[in-house]
Amino acid sequence: MRVPFDELLEVLHDALRASGMEEERARLCARLFAEASRDGVASHGLNRFPRFVRMIARGVVDVRARPECVGRAGALERWDGRRGPGNLNAHESMARAIALGREYGVGCVALANTNHWMRGGSYGWQAADAGVIGLCWTNTLANLPPWGAAAPRLGNNPLVIAMPRGAGHVVLDMAMSQYSVGALTAHADRGQPLPVAGGYDEEGALTHDARAILESRRLLPIGFWKGSGLALMLDLLAAMLADGRATHEIAPDPEEETGLSQVFIAIDPLALSSNDNPGRVVEAVIAHLRAAEGDVRYPGERTLATRAESLRLGVLVNESVWSQVKAGEW
Amino acid sequence: MRVPFDELLEVLHDALRASGMEEERARLCARLFAEASRDGVASHGLNRFPRFVRMIARGVVDVRARPECVGRAGALERWDGRRGPGNLNAHESMARAIALGREYGVGCVALANTNHWMRGGSYGWQAADAGVIGLCWTNTLANLPPWGAAAPRLGNNPLVIAMPRGAGHVVLDMAMSQYSVGALTAHADRGQPLPVAGGYDEEGALTHDARAILESRRLLPIGFWKGSGLALMLDLLAAMLADGRATHEIAPDPEEETGLSQVFIAIDPLALSSNDNPGRVVEAVIAHLRAAEGDVRYPGERTLATRAESLRLGVLVNESVWSQVKAGEW
Repeated sequence: MRVPFDELLEVLHDALRASGMEEERARLCARLFAEASRDGVASHGLNRFPRFVRMIARGVVDVRARPECVGRAGALERWDGRRGPGNLNAHESMARAIALGREYGVGCVALANTNHWMRGGSYGWQAADAGVIGLCWTNTLANLPPWGAAAPRLGNNPLVIAMPRGAGHVVLDMAMSQYSVGALTAHADRGQPLPVAGGYDEEGALTHDARAILESRRLLPIGFWKGSGLALMLDLLAAMLADGRATHEIAPDPEEETGLSQVFIAIDPLALSSNDNPGRVVEAVIAHLRAAEGDVRYPGERTLATRAESLRLGVLVNESVWSQVKAGEW
Repeated sequence: MRVPFDELLEVLHDALRASGMEEERARLCARLFAEASRDGVASHGLNRFPRFVRMIARGVVDVRARPECVGRAGALERWDGRRGPGNLNAHESMARAIALGREYGVGCVALANTNHWMRGGSYGWQAADAGVIGLCWTNTLANLPPWGAAAPRLGNNPLVIAMPRGAGHVVLDMAMSQYSVGALTAHADRGQPLPVAGGYDEEGALTHDARAILESRRLLPIGFWKGSGLALMLDLLAAMLADGRATHEIAPDPEEETGLSQVFIAIDPLALSSNDNPGRVVEAVIAHLRAAEGDVRYPGERTLATRAESLRLGVLVNESVWSQVKAGEW
């Protein structure tokens, strides 16, 4: 079913207030959840909300904690998320990186001790809306076997890169596994084969069978050894720069996943280009891509289409989750 | 056959001097080529050298051009490579990013109008040797079909991430195609199937047959749509920040490939950590990875082993290329 965006926002806001979150922060936190559903990422929007409230209730997420700057070196800062709400911590960190980027051309904030940031793309759209290039990534609990092994020891560590663009930002939001656990579950539930191989079965054979992959827990890194290497680097960079936890130090239970490390980088393209139009490059590249024979989209294009549809027709919600959230059953 | 590293260095240096390169620059340029072969990347070391000399001779690479800073905004700079030797331009840009990183915590140099940087990993090792985190990437000529299309419109845009480590740096050097054209050619020549699917044949079927992929020119992006998106973002960022050419503006003939755009970022982990040991995080992560059941390596581990072997036994060279280079036949 579909519900008006404002109604979704209001219900989430009220639930957050009831969980003890301050008014202004509940507004922003609800908006980030609602926008994820609005943009077609319900797995990190409404569908994730009950778990978030449960984690507040159990004290894994400290609903009143605000992030704090604990180290400064010019354009580089280190923040402590103090186990506060992950999306609020991430939003504030990107806001700070944007401010540093405007001041120094490039700014970087490393955030330790935070919680799941929900939809990573949110902070890419945030940077692009501010007219700057945004890069950010997070580590996660271990859910990906490193290349050469069968048991998960790496996170799938999502990476976000965003480029501002007048006619619709270009925003890439990708995890290092070929499919998320959410996507695998959805295919398994529908009994549908995956479009491309997504991992290994218990016998170690590559497979399109989502259920077999969920059973073996052997998700495939993108590009095999390459995604495995990239996931490792993102974890190293985040944990080292934030002086926080690396994947192997994060609780493997999703309901207990906390103490994540993240990095937010903003680069101001106007800092070097007061006299020309940096958007020219982006438009030319997108136009060239679109001229391809075939069905080619740029990252973020589908998001914009889904967003427009959600605002016109209402946001698509899972009926049972929606009832649960309205009833305050966590 | 194997030749002593110093002999390789000397022969390359003399050839560069004969091509009109100044003494000190010829030393560095020869070292970067020789080190690529020493570290097991002959495709961008000795094997690439004859083409480099031909491109100097034809004026595609301006052997005497030095890069120039054309824009400054605090920790962010824009440089013009002036079509000089790509590896020298890249080395100077990373050196400048490192200096900015030391000053501001994070530094970023965008370089336009340059040539192929040869082995991208060189600039990762350079940053790590200087004790800083290095990230850099380049665009390339179009050699990768975007997801949804069959003809190449994206570059395979290598990305390098390096983390300093006392017992051997962690350095990832990866292109956005599952295999390089060089790797495909090597498999095709040996008639060996690829270990994992590397692209599509003329009928559009995924294949392990390197020859079929070279014929169709349909190389596979890592992670299918994901690597396609990442390649696009890297091109956009490089071209926009450098105010340089994007992939679609670069000549599609490898002998004429010039005017590339690149980005170099350095982050100084000591800027925030004067009192603790940032290496602790890296050691713990590597130790955890090595404890996996299976054959797991960190990025850069094999490079170090190959390097040690090359210094002990001599650098492995292709005999016919080596004769050609010694004879000055380009």
